[in-house]
Amino acid sequence: MPTKAPPTHRPVVLLSHRGPVSFRRVRGQRRVSRGGGGLVTALMGLAGSLGDDAVWVCAAATAEDRKVVEEYGDRPVRIALAAAPHIVGEGEAADDPIVTTRMVAVDKRRHDEFYGVIANPLLWFVQHGLYGQAEQPILTSREHTAYTRGYLSVNRKFADAVIAQVKQLTAATGKDPIVLLQDYHFYLVAKRVRAACPGVTITHFVHIPWPGPNEWRVLPPEVREQLLRGLLGCDIVSFHTRRFARNFLLCCQEVLGLDIDLRAMAVDVEDRRVQVRYYPISVDPPSLEQLAKTRPVARHRSRLAAAYQGDDRQLVLRVDRTDPSKNIVRGFRAFDVLLTDHPELHGRVTFYALLQPSRQDVPEYSDYIGAIGSVVAEVNARHTGDGWQPIVLQMENDMSLAVAAYSLADVLLVNAVNDGMNLVAKEMPLVNRRDGVLVLSENTGAHEELGPYAVTVHPFDVQQQAEALYEALTLPAEERHRMLAGAVDVVRRHDVHHWLAAQLADIAALDAPEPGEPGEQPEG
Amino acid sequence: MPTKAPPTHRPVVLLSHRGPVSFRRVRGQRRVSRGGGGLVTALMGLAGSLGDDAVWVCAAATAEDRKVVEEYGDRPVRIALAAAPHIVGEGEAADDPIVTTRMVAVDKRRHDEFYGVIANPLLWFVQHGLYGQAEQPILTSREHTAYTRGYLSVNRKFADAVIAQVKQLTAATGKDPIVLLQDYHFYLVAKRVRAACPGVTITHFVHIPWPGPNEWRVLPPEVREQLLRGLLGCDIVSFHTRRFARNFLLCCQEVLGLDIDLRAMAVDVEDRRVQVRYYPISVDPPSLEQLAKTRPVARHRSRLAAAYQGDDRQLVLRVDRTDPSKNIVRGFRAFDVLLTDHPELHGRVTFYALLQPSRQDVPEYSDYIGAIGSVVAEVNARHTGDGWQPIVLQMENDMSLAVAAYSLADVLLVNAVNDGMNLVAKEMPLVNRRDGVLVLSENTGAHEELGPYAVTVHPFDVQQQAEALYEALTLPAEERHRMLAGAVDVVRRHDVHHWLAAQLADIAALDAPEPGEPGEQPEG
Repeated sequence: MPTKAPPTHRPVVLLSHRGPVSFRRVRGQRRVSRGGGGLVTALMGLAGSLGDDAVWVCAAATAEDRKVVEEYGDRPVRIALAAAPHIVGEGEAADDPIVTTRMVAVDKRRHDEFYGVIANPLLWFVQHGLYGQAEQPILTSREHTAYTRGYLSVNRKFADAVIAQVKQLTAATGKDPIVLLQDYHFYLVAKRVRAACPGVTITHFVHIPWPGPNEWRVLPPEVREQLLRGLLGCDIVSFHTRRFARNFLLCCQEVLGLDIDLRAMAVDVEDRRVQVRYYPISVDPPSLEQLAKTRPVARHRSRLAAAYQGDDRQLVLRVDRTDPSKNIVRGFRAFDVLLTDHPELHGRVTFYALLQPSRQDVPEYSDYIGAIGSVVAEVNARHTGDGWQPIVLQMENDMSLAVAAYSLADVLLVNAVNDGMNLVAKEMPLVNRRDGVLVLSENTGAHEELGPYAVTVHPFDVQQQAEALYEALTLPAEERHRMLAGAVDVVRRHDVHHWLAAQLADIAALDAPEPGEPGEQPEG
Repeated sequence: MPTKAPPTHRPVVLLSHRGPVSFRRVRGQRRVSRGGGGLVTALMGLAGSLGDDAVWVCAAATAEDRKVVEEYGDRPVRIALAAAPHIVGEGEAADDPIVTTRMVAVDKRRHDEFYGVIANPLLWFVQHGLYGQAEQPILTSREHTAYTRGYLSVNRKFADAVIAQVKQLTAATGKDPIVLLQDYHFYLVAKRVRAACPGVTITHFVHIPWPGPNEWRVLPPEVREQLLRGLLGCDIVSFHTRRFARNFLLCCQEVLGLDIDLRAMAVDVEDRRVQVRYYPISVDPPSLEQLAKTRPVARHRSRLAAAYQGDDRQLVLRVDRTDPSKNIVRGFRAFDVLLTDHPELHGRVTFYALLQPSRQDVPEYSDYIGAIGSVVAEVNARHTGDGWQPIVLQMENDMSLAVAAYSLADVLLVNAVNDGMNLVAKEMPLVNRRDGVLVLSENTGAHEELGPYAVTVHPFDVQQQAEALYEALTLPAEERHRMLAGAVDVVRRHDVHHWLAAQLADIAALDAPEPGEPGEQPEG
């Protein structure tokens, strides 16, 4: 995926938990495979286009990743991504794209504490508003230890890896790098990098919602203060939406007592001004459209269409990880209400739910899968008849199947409780062939852009969701067409390259003699 | 209770759900009894001192209340509160204090919807942050109907009762009354009263926490907007703390898109400016001290002291309604951790929990009582020995017993998840005789005033709560003495009369030619 982002004249150090590649050993040979996920795809363009002037720091995930770390240590590993991905040997000439990585291997127990106790579920739940505070969370010595021995020490380790790469790049190029930190795993990194390398420009992108001060105060005082102070080591802290950016500033004011400027979207800390920005992440339309043309997608499409469409039958779709923040149970309850209120839909509408099992080692997640199965059985038992099954639950992680389903959906339900962005809402319109209607939660980041081209739902209100589904299923054809076309237009104009380019432009503006007003950050 | 509030030159209409008196029929005779609760006590001073120039509108709660409504309709009912409380007949001379009431009888089903579906639990839970949004609330047609047919129509009915009293008082005195509305039952009243009586000055005091925009958005769009617009019918909207007042303004901005001024603490709506203020409610020290001297209190005190004190034994106390917001379960879990970490305390510390059963018709509340019993049994089973029972659970609503326990407490635990004020934290210091230490949640309104004289706890962190209990139990005597004296001083200086006087002074200032800066509302 070539980037359309403007070339930067400064080297770059990227940090994210998941990396651009991973290593395996197959029949004695080291193999390289490319990573997946929206964030990795989004950043790959940048890293690939910069070659040796970009180093991507990430966690070692496999046993073979760890072997690579043992061999290379702080030396960056260059990987040619073309036809047969491989590590580029010293002096070897290799075709673009090349991505340069520095993996970090973390002791398993510390990583479990860092990742499995603090980042998930604690930070994820707090930032998605998932705790009913009367009962959860119950913070014990386990969480305190996991924070100190896990999150804090793992963040130090990654920060030190970033610092080493910064110093190498500075020595090699004579320029101060740009450091692009990613997500809720690494809130403490920026402060440490700034202390060691005052010349760098640091940004941190938070890909999940940022809550208000009340919700942030669910974390113990020293934790919530340290995490905020860690992020304020940046020059720019970024989010997907204006609301999250505002909430972050309000937290700085209420929790740290700092002066904030809501008009300029900035906060003053010591002698520096930290900018708070928002850039809605997006997808890469050409690669999705290409996937939609492949044979596996076509096969899935034929099968799904035969099973659930034709003869005036309609398909309601959802595609989600089995995460409580996705609001899957309430979605099925809303469908239950729809079928009760509109018996004429019996036998004519199928709810196809393609769910990817997620984080099953976390009790909240495995419980949630149980709750999903339970409500599906209940709703199907109540309404089934004449061979028609109202809800079809498919637990599978298959992007070809998802794209086939996107193309056929008459309605896509995205009713998330809270969601940083929700890329499913941006993917469906690009490949849909039936003027499918997006039914979209007001609490998704995507709603700020796609709200005008969607039927809006309130995530807690199953009655209203049922009515919204009915509206979407019965919209006039021209209205469906207008809405889908509008959504496609927004996604095409604001694709993932636009997301990255806007960030790099704002970083470049920091260096400008007159720090101009940022172009697209109106105070609304 | 004579008020020390400055006399107002304008008549007053008060509105609260619970009234100053209630009626019963005993052996064929109508009897009057005075109402209880902090709010009623606080307002009684004002209403009693104004006599006929104040009318208190409230809900009819008993069958006999409804009979009084049938007899009197919109005519105010004058009640002499002295020795033998009774309704004052026309032309009868009666000694002060007199309170004048207008009760409103609401159809039972509508009242159940208004009170039992919307006000409790929905608004209470939303405003106390008690919903884990992944699972609760699930809003259905039941809630929609209850809102429209219950909350909305009951609010109209009470507003109309207030309007009738306003018109009568205006006609009788030639002056526009002040209207003082109370709490989360009546968010829609102010707007309707303003439309009918533009000359009045309206304030609404919200006695429970006000959450941030994210949490407020758990309510459906039309509900959350109507409730906010209802309150903005006021001249002044008031809360217990600066944080709640700020949250309210942020909701006006984020939910309604209005211009807010966080420095002046005001919001502009149409052609009016609405002030947002905070006044921490308090207690009446003399009446509490008087109660502490009574024989029932003395009897309870002897019994409790003999059972749980002496021989180096210490008493940890909590006094609360069995409300999930009070965080009773985590408090017992913290005590469990304390006993595990400090085996030397076995047999030497008793946790006496005096709990008043509350709202047992609401499933969340009856479940919570079960959870309390369960954790008490578990902790007692784990640590009991030699006749010592670690936790003594007393389910009872007895103010004399509470005051006796206050006087003996070595430590009072108030670890609420969220609490508008928490008067228990203000009552204990006034009558305690053992330099008892207040262990106080940072999420109580009281913490803004009493934090410097308490050991602060983080309500979600049971490890930290255990350490705070240990610290409180082992503080040096002079430090305990200093803290208790400081708390007493704060409560005496900011008593309930001060609370009321500050509000009336700000209302008077609205009429002043030059609207001066309010005295005690620093922007922090």
